[in-house]
Amino acid sequence: MGLSSSHSAVLVAIDWGTTNRRGYLLDTNGGTLDTCEDELGLVNIMNKEFYEAFKLLTTSWMEEHGPMPAVLSGMVGASTGWVEAKYCSLPAGLDDLAQNLQPVPMGSPIWIVPGVRTRDDIHTPDVIRGEEIQAIAASTSNENLLIVAPGTHSKWIQIKDGRIVWFTTFMTGDVHAAILNHTVISQLHIFNSVVSPKVFALGVKTGYSQNANLTHVIFGARTRVLFKDLEPKDVSGYLSGLLIGAEISGALSALGTSFPKISLIGSEHLCALYRKAFELCGADCNPVTENAIGKTYIDIAKRAGLLECRYECL
Amino acid sequence: MGLSSSHSAVLVAIDWGTTNRRGYLLDTNGGTLDTCEDELGLVNIMNKEFYEAFKLLTTSWMEEHGPMPAVLSGMVGASTGWVEAKYCSLPAGLDDLAQNLQPVPMGSPIWIVPGVRTRDDIHTPDVIRGEEIQAIAASTSNENLLIVAPGTHSKWIQIKDGRIVWFTTFMTGDVHAAILNHTVISQLHIFNSVVSPKVFALGVKTGYSQNANLTHVIFGARTRVLFKDLEPKDVSGYLSGLLIGAEISGALSALGTSFPKISLIGSEHLCALYRKAFELCGADCNPVTENAIGKTYIDIAKRAGLLECRYECL
Repeated sequence: MGLSSSHSAVLVAIDWGTTNRRGYLLDTNGGTLDTCEDELGLVNIMNKEFYEAFKLLTTSWMEEHGPMPAVLSGMVGASTGWVEAKYCSLPAGLDDLAQNLQPVPMGSPIWIVPGVRTRDDIHTPDVIRGEEIQAIAASTSNENLLIVAPGTHSKWIQIKDGRIVWFTTFMTGDVHAAILNHTVISQLHIFNSVVSPKVFALGVKTGYSQNANLTHVIFGARTRVLFKDLEPKDVSGYLSGLLIGAEISGALSALGTSFPKISLIGSEHLCALYRKAFELCGADCNPVTENAIGKTYIDIAKRAGLLECRYECL
Repeated sequence: MGLSSSHSAVLVAIDWGTTNRRGYLLDTNGGTLDTCEDELGLVNIMNKEFYEAFKLLTTSWMEEHGPMPAVLSGMVGASTGWVEAKYCSLPAGLDDLAQNLQPVPMGSPIWIVPGVRTRDDIHTPDVIRGEEIQAIAASTSNENLLIVAPGTHSKWIQIKDGRIVWFTTFMTGDVHAAILNHTVISQLHIFNSVVSPKVFALGVKTGYSQNANLTHVIFGARTRVLFKDLEPKDVSGYLSGLLIGAEISGALSALGTSFPKISLIGSEHLCALYRKAFELCGADCNPVTENAIGKTYIDIAKRAGLLECRYECL
């Protein structure tokens, strides 16, 4: 296997989460030669068969390009994942991640990227696994940035000079699903994936202004339907708005008035919802335009010296 | 059937809720001659067999004391109950409830007490069914009172001169169960009905001070276990404290600084938890000492003229 051409594959990277994963075949500059995506996230792997799942994703790449190291990030490094990787403390940049890679004792050179941990003002621990790579990747052209990664556990990550200096988690998506499906509100809810902009806006404004009163205003998702202010098909969208509005309000308060440019990373659907919500709350935000995720994985591999070795077929 | 003796049974009253119900056999002064309690709440009644359930509770009383009217309160009057009863607007006192009784078209003289509705400052509708009777009953010796009725949907009810002038609902118990059992936190939780006072206090103080940040601090129920700050058996108690603390913070803010004496009504276990939480938040509260619930039902029946009729066996 030669490392001389910049277009030769030198690294496999996998963003390996709870429900799905995305693999990247990378050249020495972080250019993406190939990608693949499947649903073999942690919850879909039985009997800890991580190595089998790893080979399923990587074998054809290794067969074509020869053996090469792999760098894995995300929940694959959690206590419930393949091998537990440690957490870096703040501030955390590429060097900190590279110096704390967790080797996987297998027949291939595989390393897991550490997570990042912190404690908030009242000493509650907080953790990220996976978003640290995406956030650092998003910041390569903007050194000071506030990244918002919406999802089951929405993350707000502040980057300064290429390092994560602050982050916080909101259980927005997880709480949305639990309340929608497992409280008195579930009796009213009719599944409908289309979110009405008007209803979503009502939710956002209510959540933003009433975040300190959240378990009260959530009851409104029931009573508004009872009194025909809201249709059953709109319960989910209203509740989305409520929780996203409360998230924005809570996070912007924690950040104070002087926060840097906000950028969104994540699925197109969620980013569109959040972008609208930010607009309704009077804050500007932008999707991340340049995606340097391959370069970020390569940088970690280079700093850890992984690309200097020659790997044999095992 | 004679109405002359004050110790003769003249009214059956049933506090008929979602999961259970409590029946009272009352004399003309509201004295309780007998009570009975069972689990035939709305969720345990199949095929709308409310009349059968009604007879199951009342037949032995009617056989012994002759036919008499019945007054029902609670979720039995909801759209999902026996017959839908209307809602009174605020302020609502005994006269308002008595004037809006909903007859049940059955072989016995049965009336359902209306619920009470309001809209909060931001126009979200709010409703109570059942707690209006308990709150008015609790206030008979204290004309100006703030009643807190903890539960699945915790109610805060302000009484002035015997009428409900303000109330608000927090989905505390419902959200607690949904988050504990249906989010990432459920993986950590070990069922344990004993709440550690220390852990509960940590939850209350966190929820009270961080209520505007609720979907963030809830994530702490997971991360505190991850970092051994909390044992899995304490997750439920911590989360109870968080949500109760957030409820107290939200409600006291809505009320401003000048709120009247706070009294608790409800189960001994929940009232003890809330009493402790109030103490931790620097607010005084007391359990309701005198229970005038029988008198309250009798007052409604008298104001509606139900005791003036003579009922025949049907």
